[in-house]
Amino acid sequence: MASIEQMESVESILNQHLPPGEREQVLRVLYGKETKPLSLPQAALTTAEKNDFEIKGYSFSAAPEQLRAPRIVRVGLIQNKIVIPTDRPLKEQRDALHQHISTIVKAAAESQVNIVCFQEAWTMPFAFCTREKKPWCEFAESAEDGPTTELVKDLSKQYNMVIISPILERDTVHGETIWNTAVVVSKGRYVGKHRKNHIPRVGDFNESSYYFEGNTGHPVFQTEFGKIAINICYGRHHPLNWFMFGVNGAEIVFNPSATVGELSEPLWGIEARNAAIANSYFTCAINRVGTEKFPNEFTSGDGRPAHQEFGHFYGSSYVAAPDGSRTPGLSRIKDGLLIAEMDLNLCRQVKDVWGFQMTQRLDMYAKSIDAAIQPNYEPQIIN
Amino acid sequence: MASIEQMESVESILNQHLPPGEREQVLRVLYGKETKPLSLPQAALTTAEKNDFEIKGYSFSAAPEQLRAPRIVRVGLIQNKIVIPTDRPLKEQRDALHQHISTIVKAAAESQVNIVCFQEAWTMPFAFCTREKKPWCEFAESAEDGPTTELVKDLSKQYNMVIISPILERDTVHGETIWNTAVVVSKGRYVGKHRKNHIPRVGDFNESSYYFEGNTGHPVFQTEFGKIAINICYGRHHPLNWFMFGVNGAEIVFNPSATVGELSEPLWGIEARNAAIANSYFTCAINRVGTEKFPNEFTSGDGRPAHQEFGHFYGSSYVAAPDGSRTPGLSRIKDGLLIAEMDLNLCRQVKDVWGFQMTQRLDMYAKSIDAAIQPNYEPQIIN
Repeated sequence: MASIEQMESVESILNQHLPPGEREQVLRVLYGKETKPLSLPQAALTTAEKNDFEIKGYSFSAAPEQLRAPRIVRVGLIQNKIVIPTDRPLKEQRDALHQHISTIVKAAAESQVNIVCFQEAWTMPFAFCTREKKPWCEFAESAEDGPTTELVKDLSKQYNMVIISPILERDTVHGETIWNTAVVVSKGRYVGKHRKNHIPRVGDFNESSYYFEGNTGHPVFQTEFGKIAINICYGRHHPLNWFMFGVNGAEIVFNPSATVGELSEPLWGIEARNAAIANSYFTCAINRVGTEKFPNEFTSGDGRPAHQEFGHFYGSSYVAAPDGSRTPGLSRIKDGLLIAEMDLNLCRQVKDVWGFQMTQRLDMYAKSIDAAIQPNYEPQIIN
Repeated sequence: MASIEQMESVESILNQHLPPGEREQVLRVLYGKETKPLSLPQAALTTAEKNDFEIKGYSFSAAPEQLRAPRIVRVGLIQNKIVIPTDRPLKEQRDALHQHISTIVKAAAESQVNIVCFQEAWTMPFAFCTREKKPWCEFAESAEDGPTTELVKDLSKQYNMVIISPILERDTVHGETIWNTAVVVSKGRYVGKHRKNHIPRVGDFNESSYYFEGNTGHPVFQTEFGKIAINICYGRHHPLNWFMFGVNGAEIVFNPSATVGELSEPLWGIEARNAAIANSYFTCAINRVGTEKFPNEFTSGDGRPAHQEFGHFYGSSYVAAPDGSRTPGLSRIKDGLLIAEMDLNLCRQVKDVWGFQMTQRLDMYAKSIDAAIQPNYEPQIIN
């Protein structure tokens, strides 16, 4: 058996070893109603092969309705390693990522993708493990018209795509404040942004040394392809964060992330998928891939000697549907583009069946939570 | 491959077909940190074999602490078929279940179980698919001193066990109101009850014809073995329900359920486990087993002809820990007792590492939810 850094995916092992009948049963329980592989155009496959990234596509099914036409959308999730080492000049690092992701976006366009989302802080290594302010803060740029947003506007216009671009934001209007921000661009135009609501202080995720809790609420972006929202990384651990995007009407919630194996891998398949079920929308979970090595050594607060590597980002990006079904994941070790085709009508169809939006008793919880935040709250304990 | 009603479990298929190395990797990703099998006493194994139920035990690990002693607890989850047909006299049906469950409780006692929980509405078939009031409403009984609670008091006293007994409750103080209620008994004494907060109207779960949404809030029962709560069945789909039990300090939340394969099986491994992760407590998911056939035919509102069978309750009861690990499930087709040993110190250990209780921004959500329940709420939409 290969080492854990070399393991391609759970699905590849199941596919290799389970007889077809057993495989079908296991996947039905583990992954829900089967997603059908999409037939992708040769141009996209060639682009992927030439540039050494995986490309996979799946389709979720929904029922036809009598009074509404289907609303078919294709989303693309991009996961990638950094392209050149972290000790190279920052502009070279960023340019290399700009170029690499532009290539993958081209493959997405060739595959008729309507909405694409990149991984968290995609223009840089995930340097927050180092606690060094220099040089990493230099990666922060304007959400509205920084060099990355300008590139994204061009790509969006060229391919008529909605693009979600999660970056490190520098807010010069408010005294050079730094944020972890997802920028939404449509038809070549900056539409808006969302700032990460929940900031981790766990493992090597020293993010609160760089930026604080977001102040943009729970916006839903009404695009021509549907209502979308972004729950950035650690926010996936907070059910209320997912919940409020649902309350505001999201049909697809993207979760651009950066997370490593030892910390979170068994949680990865659970949280975004639970959110899809609980809130009757699609969720798109995106993770980095590979191991990032930094110029200077750092410690991790766990007794290990100083070291220069963050740990293994395990990729495994996937899409989950409101009916609890999910696609297979992208590779744990390789760059990739995951394409999912969905009929957004499925959201309302599932709500009509399960009725969570009507059985949730939100008025009761408004009162309970109001009470719970009081300093003198008395928990309901029975002895 | 056996039919879906005959499939023992996902784990049994993985164990049979995967080479040991691959199996370990797959289970690490799918089930988290390994739970160790418990060595169970021969008396319990013999009781199980003689009475044709499965018995399995697993142990979750926690770190030793310097300033607190471990708080080791054993919980027992019981899943079962009804014992005699649904057309037999009600007292015979209930007596048969009383006797069968008493036997399984004996095996739990022999295995040093401290807290045991039965499945939802355990004294009766899950007759709510029929919409018949007669004779099923007759199963409803007093939570404080009905025949079932009296039996449970005896068992609790005899074995020094905390017992959670989910029944159909008849509240004579309030005009013969019927509830879906979990009764908590400790040291032979009635401690309190919790009424199901969220009532489904989905598939054959016509429960709102029999009882309404509970009025007991989110109580946590402080027992000698730890702080416990009960999220009954459909409440597992509601993250806020899980959340409030956590706010009130629960360390173990039991989820006695009755759910069938076609409706929910791919969701089963996700929801209670996500709740354990999100709220840093243990969760115990319990489901019925088998197919229940009713005397009169009924329709299911799904175009199928009238029929007498509810569908396949798929068992698969399991326990999940705050660190995201979980036990294998009980069988999909057989009665069973699942025993899990846990150190409740793990709850606080995980909170100290992940910090969800401090990064959750509950004051923000109190305001957001207050706003959302207003009739004139304007969702936060960006065009």
